[in-house]
Amino acid sequence: MLDNKLKFIIEVDKLKTVNRMTSIIGNSRKENDAEHSFHVALMAHVLASYADRPIDPNRVSKMLLIHDVVEIDAGDTFAYDEEGYKDKEEREEKAAKRLFGLLNDDGEYYRLWREFEDMETDDSLFANGLDRLQPMLLNYFNGGGTWKSHNITKEKVYKRLEPLQKISITLWNLGTKYIDDYFEHEK
Amino acid sequence: MLDNKLKFIIEVDKLKTVNRMTSIIGNSRKENDAEHSFHVALMAHVLASYADRPIDPNRVSKMLLIHDVVEIDAGDTFAYDEEGYKDKEEREEKAAKRLFGLLNDDGEYYRLWREFEDMETDDSLFANGLDRLQPMLLNYFNGGGTWKSHNITKEKVYKRLEPLQKISITLWNLGTKYIDDYFEHEK
Repeated sequence: MLDNKLKFIIEVDKLKTVNRMTSIIGNSRKENDAEHSFHVALMAHVLASYADRPIDPNRVSKMLLIHDVVEIDAGDTFAYDEEGYKDKEEREEKAAKRLFGLLNDDGEYYRLWREFEDMETDDSLFANGLDRLQPMLLNYFNGGGTWKSHNITKEKVYKRLEPLQKISITLWNLGTKYIDDYFEHEK
Repeated sequence: MLDNKLKFIIEVDKLKTVNRMTSIIGNSRKENDAEHSFHVALMAHVLASYADRPIDPNRVSKMLLIHDVVEIDAGDTFAYDEEGYKDKEEREEKAAKRLFGLLNDDGEYYRLWREFEDMETDDSLFANGLDRLQPMLLNYFNGGGTWKSHNITKEKVYKRLEPLQKISITLWNLGTKYIDDYFEHEK
């Protein structure tokens, strides 16, 4: 049993080498999945009180610690890459089976990931909302980041943030304030 | 209130640029504090059942998400750097006041960090144990890592892992098995 858990723990080290499109603040380099997962898992604790319905900050944080593990096999799909999204689900399902399967547990971690993906519970809405808010903060503080480099429209950025609107009006207002501010002053 | 939390969230992005001595598995580069915090916070959930006395995996994970925040100001002190450890406490206490102070909360995060440092509760013993086990796993899978590059003796590595012995004999045995294996076959 411990051997299985250890295999998983060693395997997730690879998240440190899966780069995302977003850069860390200061624009010096791309952020990786381990750093992103750290950031959003901490945000879950710090921002939990802004959920409009009861959520469990500990479950949300745990969900966010494992939400990108599938990208070890499936890679990072850029949020605005419509082509990449076509087979994203299939690639990630296969990856989830292999990676969470390493744990040889009762399926707890697979189910937690599945819940994140399905976005039907309040915990998963909050987790998805933060997962989308975090790169927006980085983009904003990087003078536009991927919005600028990939000519993403304001409408698409708004659309991307929608899960947050369903669970936290306060954080939705915060996110859209930044989006509005950037696109109004965009050069 | 939200402004304060946001300041903290933006500030902790800097953990992604605080490099540690240990390298990620594969030895391609040093690990940073954000990656390390991600890894140990996840280990808290995955390995919680191996604690010899009741611990709260969620508290331990949260503690580990924030345990290195002070290094934004105080820098990373190498585990085996006796000189650096002399003023570590003072530097980190000052950093904790400033960084957790950004949150303008009731002191919850400062107290959680203080508990981690004091190593008196079972949650904090387990957190410290994992904080020490994780770089040992990386060192082992990197053919010795900092043990080799800095000529650290087996006795010093054993000593470093002691908090884990106080809270999980299973994980202590795992850690020392790796230490023994490396030092027996050391070149």
